[in-house]
Amino acid sequence: MKLYDVTRAPNPRRARIFIAEKGLPMPELIQLDLAGLEHRKPEFARLNPWMGTPALVLDDGTVISESVAICRYFEELHPTPALFGAGARERALVEMWNRRLEFGLYTNIAQTFRHTNAHMAHREVPQVAAWGEANRERAQVQMQLINDHLGDGRPFICGDQFSIADITGGISLDFARVPKITAGPELTHLAAWHARLMARPSWGA
Amino acid sequence: MKLYDVTRAPNPRRARIFIAEKGLPMPELIQLDLAGLEHRKPEFARLNPWMGTPALVLDDGTVISESVAICRYFEELHPTPALFGAGARERALVEMWNRRLEFGLYTNIAQTFRHTNAHMAHREVPQVAAWGEANRERAQVQMQLINDHLGDGRPFICGDQFSIADITGGISLDFARVPKITAGPELTHLAAWHARLMARPSWGA
Repeated sequence: MKLYDVTRAPNPRRARIFIAEKGLPMPELIQLDLAGLEHRKPEFARLNPWMGTPALVLDDGTVISESVAICRYFEELHPTPALFGAGARERALVEMWNRRLEFGLYTNIAQTFRHTNAHMAHREVPQVAAWGEANRERAQVQMQLINDHLGDGRPFICGDQFSIADITGGISLDFARVPKITAGPELTHLAAWHARLMARPSWGA
Repeated sequence: MKLYDVTRAPNPRRARIFIAEKGLPMPELIQLDLAGLEHRKPEFARLNPWMGTPALVLDDGTVISESVAICRYFEELHPTPALFGAGARERALVEMWNRRLEFGLYTNIAQTFRHTNAHMAHREVPQVAAWGEANRERAQVQMQLINDHLGDGRPFICGDQFSIADITGGISLDFARVPKITAGPELTHLAAWHARLMARPSWGA
């Protein structure tokens, strides 16, 4: 089993943190150089025509791309601890929160980064600065919404149980530093949650 | 059980088609008027602070928003037919394909629509025409990729089994007509797949 990886990129980090939270051994990591466009070269595009990272290659040659699909694979094989929830209602709610954080917070931060950072100009064509800046504002709105949600005493996004939604949120807040999107000092619940996530042993995976 | 619905919007359609494919009775439908911004009024925002549709309200008051989370809820309660796959490998692959079609095809079409349609100017603020047009080109690239994938004889995205990834792809192609994104006539596998989906009894749900 091999994991095509990018050490600092948020989606590969999501998969690695998930594997660490499961207490599983890390697959063999193969580093890709995104700045050098290695993920768009034929060798990798044959594995994943969508050219995204990470990608997990099973011993039978099956390729699983998309970080959440990779997490789902490990969840199905190793159900404990349940990071996608247990039971219909809880699984649906974890999926809902993971998507809210991904389509909201994560996407807004990533679009800001992709459309405003000069180093991304050769990867994000065309860069549309007005779109990047619109996303910067939206990311702030998302941070406020999440802070309000956490405000009634929840340690984690889905309540008492840590889940993949926390990983998605945490890697997003880490990533927000790159395009310099910072939470206002009044968002104390968001800051406390982020600190709890960063203190977990998995966070350095 | 109540489903906050928008008859013609793609994400509520995805949930309704999924429920129909499961052979389940449709929940009571409550229509929201997106053009009238009814989804942003306090009554609905209290149910779903993220203000997206659809939203399922269970009899105990639990609110599940995000169409895929609603689908997951019904999948967990009624596992047959398995529309998210069966077994770790297949579930991971269905999730991968559903995400490829959602982050690629669906998102590109939706962004084109939101940023180029005059009727969306009061909902998508700011509208960024250059971003809309960039997505129009990306949607065409996605259509080509999906056509190539289907080209080796697969009736459905994940092979012989119909899955949620087909629903995501099909509602996306239906939606593409609104911003006038059309597949080139050479994309015969894509067209045949779309025709197969539209012929399913669930498609009018």
